Amino acid sequence: MLGMPWETKFNIETAIDDATNVFWAKGYKATSLNDLLSVMKINKGSFYNTFGSKQALFNRSLLKYDLTHRHQTLSNLRQLNNPVHAISQLFDLIIEQSVNDTERKGCFIINTAMDLPNLDDETASTVKNGIKQLELFFKEQIELGINNQSISKPLDSPQVAKALVALAAGCRILARGVFDEHDLATIKQQALALIK
Amino acid sequence: MLGMPWETKFNIETAIDDATNVFWAKGYKATSLNDLLSVMKINKGSFYNTFGSKQALFNRSLLKYDLTHRHQTLSNLRQLNNPVHAISQLFDLIIEQSVNDTERKGCFIINTAMDLPNLDDETASTVKNGIKQLELFFKEQIELGINNQSISKPLDSPQVAKALVALAAGCRILARGVFDEHDLATIKQQALALIK
Repeated sequence: MLGMPWETKFNIETAIDDATNVFWAKGYKATSLNDLLSVMKINKGSFYNTFGSKQALFNRSLLKYDLTHRHQTLSNLRQLNNPVHAISQLFDLIIEQSVNDTERKGCFIINTAMDLPNLDDETASTVKNGIKQLELFFKEQIELGINNQSISKPLDSPQVAKALVALAAGCRILARGVFDEHDLATIKQQALALIK
Repeated sequence: MLGMPWETKFNIETAIDDATNVFWAKGYKATSLNDLLSVMKINKGSFYNTFGSKQALFNRSLLKYDLTHRHQTLSNLRQLNNPVHAISQLFDLIIEQSVNDTERKGCFIINTAMDLPNLDDETASTVKNGIKQLELFFKEQIELGINNQSISKPLDSPQVAKALVALAAGCRILARGVFDEHDLATIKQQALALIK
């Protein structure tokens, strides 16, 4: 059956992923409508009919990234059931992704956290939730480690969790052009020094 | 004596400071020429005659910020001649500045580090130098502390210095809308836990 003339003739999820790559690399403000139309291979009419606005598409991109990257990664690490190893692996993944990405895009959530004063409340809430979930992951893993005695230090888990978030965020920024792979591995070692 | 008609009729340093505030809050790409002309209160002709280009002015702003903020702050802290206190004070200053700035601009050097893949080599070199100087400050303070026995842990000073840079950078990003004053104070406590 042929589609109706006003029917969407493109795959929405693919278009969102294409948009995400540009928003992720350049940030919200520096991404123009033309940048988006060109990577999404759609026209202005389809863009506004389907996504409403650049801001709405940005929020959709960020939410999808948060689910597929942050949420998925933390779920996989929880399955390890080995807190110190899970935390260590998370830093390894950050370093690996940073080093292998030729565009050095970093983390879409952390990049957006940097620009929060210039963005809307919906974006702020997606960013805050993503980072809060990372903090809760660290806190829960530290407590698991204390309970199963793989962590022997008497740690203040909420405090250390926040510091691990800051180290991970610092890794992400510095990986965009200041620190090399060796420097990033050093940050991981010091993150582990906080819990071991 | 009256100035010649082509003579600069504005204070160059004040104009650079005005431009810095916009670049700092919005970043290079999101700052338009009109934003700059409006805060600098000059016309397009004077702008290009005096500064050459938006990129050249950005580099000049960043270099001036690095000298007046980063360089000046580290010099003052060195005078304390008390390594643990100097490192603690640096985090206090970061937190204080972050909390008191209603625009939550963060640190101009760290904001720019995040955007490095989209900026030119001159900018990258200013950012890398600013962050390298911060790292050297931490390394030198840790070594001073080990020498004067105010730090009793057997620390790998280059490693810990890099982790402190990552924590400071993390503080700066998270202060832009995710972490509150109390959370930031927690990061400072964990930074001190790495050296004490």
